[in-house]
Amino acid sequence: MKIVFYYAQQTVSVASHIVLEEIGAQYETRVLNFAEAEQRSEDYLKTNPKGRVPALVTERGILTETPAILAYLAQSFPDSNMAPLDDPFEFAKLQEFNAYLCATVHVAHAHRMRGHRWVDDEAAIVAMQAKVPQTMSECFQLIEDTMFKGPWVRGDNYTICDPYLFTISNWLKSDNVDINHFPAIAEFHARMRQRPAVQRVLELHGLP
Amino acid sequence: MKIVFYYAQQTVSVASHIVLEEIGAQYETRVLNFAEAEQRSEDYLKTNPKGRVPALVTERGILTETPAILAYLAQSFPDSNMAPLDDPFEFAKLQEFNAYLCATVHVAHAHRMRGHRWVDDEAAIVAMQAKVPQTMSECFQLIEDTMFKGPWVRGDNYTICDPYLFTISNWLKSDNVDINHFPAIAEFHARMRQRPAVQRVLELHGLP
Repeated sequence: MKIVFYYAQQTVSVASHIVLEEIGAQYETRVLNFAEAEQRSEDYLKTNPKGRVPALVTERGILTETPAILAYLAQSFPDSNMAPLDDPFEFAKLQEFNAYLCATVHVAHAHRMRGHRWVDDEAAIVAMQAKVPQTMSECFQLIEDTMFKGPWVRGDNYTICDPYLFTISNWLKSDNVDINHFPAIAEFHARMRQRPAVQRVLELHGLP
Repeated sequence: MKIVFYYAQQTVSVASHIVLEEIGAQYETRVLNFAEAEQRSEDYLKTNPKGRVPALVTERGILTETPAILAYLAQSFPDSNMAPLDDPFEFAKLQEFNAYLCATVHVAHAHRMRGHRWVDDEAAIVAMQAKVPQTMSECFQLIEDTMFKGPWVRGDNYTICDPYLFTISNWLKSDNVDINHFPAIAEFHARMRQRPAVQRVLELHGLP
């Protein structure tokens, strides 16, 4: 399967990038420079009219949205065991977790740097930014208390949920939230950093 | 399979409710009254600590998040043909669409009534509300122009994407957006209303 992966450094595309590395996929990359708004270029909008990353170009067509890409990679590389493909309920629990990250946690974080998506008033953008440490803390407390099973998100099996949670938990510092308030997630985060696939992707994204 | 479906009237739970009806599932319902904040009651938080709807209680456990519930129902009732279960790429395209509804369109809409999730300042909440017609219009223009294939979301096959898009397009009027600006979606919306499953659910939700 020929795959071209469009990403921008230090964005949510880190999650899909880690999974591509974990499953041993053969893929090419195209890096978009957010500082130059390449994700809004006429050329890239032909690939993803939403002007977002990541995008996965396959022989069948183009795929966007992190939860969709992660589940697709798990299904397309079943030997990688990144999702319980023969168990619809447990598969759904992975999807539930990823939907929470996508629609609640990522959205809470986005109110710090992307407030203009939802409001034009500058004072309102500042007011949004002020609440981000609280909303992100509440999300991670809920994950720690009610979702995270340990040692991985879904328990003993490393799945597509783990690179996604790692990617977003990596934003906590810039959101002014101390990850050590969430001991299970802090320990998970440190363990993720020891995986060779994670280390390769962090380096490609210029992340410490 | 024994299912108990927790919902609140006129919320995003309409989407899962329609799919439950379309697939002919046997299920019980529990209605939560948002006006009395029952979704935040101690009792319900044991079912869904996020304090949101819908929630699906199955013999295996509890499932939340609309995209996860919809894919789970399609997989658990394969004879209903609500998703292309043997085609990972096309299945991913459904998931991509549902992720966009969940994380971008529903979130844009939520800035009208749920602004306190992201900001404390009252003036900022008003400023958020003011932009909702624009953000919702932009989302629906993108769906009309680049995602919606017709006559259903994914083309000739009626899938789990259709009740979800119907549910959110039903919010356009209250968001002060005229659905007729999007002719394909307006036609889809009218056709959805003719389905008996949709009519049953609209009545249960007190929707015209």
